[in-house]
Amino acid sequence: MVKRGVMIGRFQPFHFGHLKGIQQILKEVDELIILIGSAQYSHSFNNPFTAGERIMMIHAALLEYDIDLTRCYIIPLMDTNDNRIWVAHLVSCVPSFDVAYSHNPLVKRLLYESGISVKSTQLYNREIYSATEVRNRILNNGAWEELVPKSVADIIKDISGVERIQQICETTIKI
Amino acid sequence: MVKRGVMIGRFQPFHFGHLKGIQQILKEVDELIILIGSAQYSHSFNNPFTAGERIMMIHAALLEYDIDLTRCYIIPLMDTNDNRIWVAHLVSCVPSFDVAYSHNPLVKRLLYESGISVKSTQLYNREIYSATEVRNRILNNGAWEELVPKSVADIIKDISGVERIQQICETTIKI
Amino acid sequence: MVKRGVMIGRFQPFHFGHLKGIQQILKEVDELIILIGSAQYSHSFNNPFTAGERIMMIHAALLEYDIDLTRCYIIPLMDTNDNRIWVAHLVSCVPSFDVAYSHNPLVKRLLYESGISVKSTQLYNREIYSATEVRNRILNNGAWEELVPKSVADIIKDISGVERIQQICETTIKI
Amino acid sequence: MVKRGVMIGRFQPFHFGHLKGIQQILKEVDELIILIGSAQYSHSFNNPFTAGERIMMIHAALLEYDIDLTRCYIIPLMDTNDNRIWVAHLVSCVPSFDVAYSHNPLVKRLLYESGISVKSTQLYNREIYSATEVRNRILNNGAWEELVPKSVADIIKDISGVERIQQICETTIKI
Amino acid sequence: MVKRGVMIGRFQPFHFGHLKGIQQILKEVDELIILIGSAQYSHSFNNPFTAGERIMMIHAALLEYDIDLTRCYIIPLMDTNDNRIWVAHLVSCVPSFDVAYSHNPLVKRLLYESGISVKSTQLYNREIYSATEVRNRILNNGAWEELVPKSVADIIKDISGVERIQQICETTIKI
Amino acid sequence: MVKRGVMIGRFQPFHFGHLKGIQQILKEVDELIILIGSAQYSHSFNNPFTAGERIMMIHAALLEYDIDLTRCYIIPLMDTNDNRIWVAHLVSCVPSFDVAYSHNPLVKRLLYESGISVKSTQLYNREIYSATEVRNRILNNGAWEELVPKSVADIIKDISGVERIQQICETTIKI
Repeated sequence: MVKRGVMIGRFQPFHFGHLKGIQQILKEVDELIILIGSAQYSHSFNNPFTAGERIMMIHAALLEYDIDLTRCYIIPLMDTNDNRIWVAHLVSCVPSFDVAYSHNPLVKRLLYESGISVKSTQLYNREIYSATEVRNRILNNGAWEELVPKSVADIIKDISGVERIQQICETTIKI
Repeated sequence: MVKRGVMIGRFQPFHFGHLKGIQQILKEVDELIILIGSAQYSHSFNNPFTAGERIMMIHAALLEYDIDLTRCYIIPLMDTNDNRIWVAHLVSCVPSFDVAYSHNPLVKRLLYESGISVKSTQLYNREIYSATEVRNRILNNGAWEELVPKSVADIIKDISGVERIQQICETTIKI
Repeated sequence: MVKRGVMIGRFQPFHFGHLKGIQQILKEVDELIILIGSAQYSHSFNNPFTAGERIMMIHAALLEYDIDLTRCYIIPLMDTNDNRIWVAHLVSCVPSFDVAYSHNPLVKRLLYESGISVKSTQLYNREIYSATEVRNRILNNGAWEELVPKSVADIIKDISGVERIQQICETTIKI
Repeated sequence: MVKRGVMIGRFQPFHFGHLKGIQQILKEVDELIILIGSAQYSHSFNNPFTAGERIMMIHAALLEYDIDLTRCYIIPLMDTNDNRIWVAHLVSCVPSFDVAYSHNPLVKRLLYESGISVKSTQLYNREIYSATEVRNRILNNGAWEELVPKSVADIIKDISGVERIQQICETTIKI
Repeated sequence: MVKRGVMIGRFQPFHFGHLKGIQQILKEVDELIILIGSAQYSHSFNNPFTAGERIMMIHAALLEYDIDLTRCYIIPLMDTNDNRIWVAHLVSCVPSFDVAYSHNPLVKRLLYESGISVKSTQLYNREIYSATEVRNRILNNGAWEELVPKSVADIIKDISGVERIQQICETTIKI
Repeated sequence: MVKRGVMIGRFQPFHFGHLKGIQQILKEVDELIILIGSAQYSHSFNNPFTAGERIMMIHAALLEYDIDLTRCYIIPLMDTNDNRIWVAHLVSCVPSFDVAYSHNPLVKRLLYESGISVKSTQLYNREIYSATEVRNRILNNGAWEELVPKSVADIIKDISGVERIQQICETTIKI
């Protein structure tokens, strides 16, 4: 029987911490669902990239690091904005799975109350390998590229992601 | 002709202040609709309990305090997130009524602009009998049980409500 | 431990078949949730009455027939239009329950796949005690009142329900 | 005091029947709101044109026929798919009005139950001046242009509306 | 060929800054679409007025200042709360246009990424001619009327807009 | 530069016609996005399987037929029920692409009006290799397994898909 796990994140953007998590989980399960949460949001500081852009980043990074794509599913999930039904929504959108991986207390609680087994991955140098840190460095023209795989940096530059984040964070003046 | 009132709250959770309000209103009307607002929200600090759990609490508390359930309707109402249509939404979801009871200025304004008569109940020891106070005491392992009917405390403990509130309020760390 | 059942219907309108079903189920459970499905729909031939109007009908009929209201919950439920999440939506909106009662194959399948026990009630003279039959008789000025409790007929007449059904079924001519 | 009316239609597309209706109503009121219903639908046989395209058609036709645009408002309205709240939605989206004009029985019933005065306009050669007839003639390469103002025909041709209707009505074959 | 522009704002409420912007843009384009964003929101401090009330204000102000209404379209647009599709939503709801006018960085970025030309209007005494300033003066009984056209002030007073803003900003006390 | 295509279908369920289409397209492009439309629907005769179940079927079938999964993306897409914004929704949810493959006239029209290149694949024995035919044979206990890859048949049986389709198609009797 195939043992399947689901790893839940927003991947705004995908960085080396995510990569380490995936490599660790793939030692514990046969197949891994990489679930891109908050899929409908984009073009804000917290969620700058679309679901499609995030899929491209993850696919490219897995290829770059020789991770076996036949063992992975990369699936976007729109938020329901309704905690009561989020687990049912998740379950219906992905292949059946045996264990979920998340560091988010709400996600962990919702899964737990539905009887789903939840684990955490070991955090890898959390202070710098966080998506918030990457976005902050992009915003301030810092050294963000060292936090993400080269293939991810290439995509971000290709879609003008730096300009996007910097423009949407300008002070808003409405007429 | 039956005189019917509607009392609007979120009941997160139901406490002695709500109970006093219901007892007071039942002296003024023949039948009372207890409307559970923001029904779709749950599993957050501000809205920890589902609509179904809140219905159980109110039903049990009315029984515990010998309030005549044949004179009461306990009805959940999802938020519309759209003030323009909230009154129409409310009106269509509950039996016809003559007067509404609320302390919320927006609710009072929306009802007033629709020509509906609005009253406030007398607040009962507001500093401690508030749902925010109950949730804060639950979060901090304080003396929350003395603020709610025994039947409500039993339900909260039965559904692991204390653990739920404490877990979802942990600092979130996202990978 | 309280044994609780949920009876699922649209009650457009409530008729003697529903009443018999409730009386039968109350012999099998301690408490009964009467769930009003498709709560957001009204003013069409299939769903002429609002959720609030249907709540009034059921409450009045239970009183008329001396059914113990302290053992009953009357709860409206909006359709999700999304079968994948309907059970989670239902479960979050009502008190916890042990068994569900429905004659609808889709509802029964969805509950079954979620591991919920489902039963059917005995149908009572199905050819005439059906909501479709009641609405057809209302539309065609037939003998609809004999199919529903007197308290229900009084409410339908009080809210001009006959005129409503007849007007919305006129042939539509749009300019 | 200004007397304002609202005329409710889908205008798929705007034709001479609509034009006659507007000319008639403008004799009865000071200002007229032309409400474009089902605004979110497009690219189907029943609703081929977007709200923006319909606004262009009506604006151009009123100019072509020297109707005083300072007395008119052209406003799109998305369907709510929820009859209970449609009137509240309508009222919040348009200037205050004294009377509504519609031939649709449901629209008339909903307005009537909300206490709004409703009138019908005289139908002008209904067999041919109907939007269904126009769309059927477009689909079948018939003489549709004679049913609409020249400015409307020009817009339909300019946006390739004939090709759109004919393509979306091809038999669908899904792989 | 007609050159058409779209000016994007929330107009909560319409003030002299908006008026100057419209007068300036009408020198650059043949026709102007005045797009009322966040149309579904009302009865909050940031969005006190409904779409219909804002349409009335703009229509009246254009008349008061002899702006040619035959060259203008006043169109409400509901927010999508989904940046990915906002431009498609906008485009489908308004007549085709050549250039957009906005001071909002997000709006400008979304339009730019869709290949739409975006300009800013010159800001006119920005410190006082802002909708936030108007609302603050209304809330605090300040000299708000000097910031808006007389016809706009008349409408705000006519719909009890001052009372509305002051009431919904009272400290909320929920039972 | 990578040439990417998107193939649009509902895959209810995945059959040999889909497989042939994928094999053909992979000769024309470097990477293929397999887009699962109407992702939110399930448990009806037209859409019996959830998005997650359909992802499992496609993933397994590609593996069974030695199709290079590193060149494929399998992505679910919820319907918008709003043709105006469907293309923007699609584009934001998938990696950037150069050409789309569809046999659906509406899909083809919407993509064409957005300036996207659309092709059709050659239909492979259309009379029998259609999802409708598969579902009809499942419903009537016919020879459905010969129309789908063995791995797909195994999944359908594993999730009790035959029983699901047969149960939800029973005549509905509502109390």
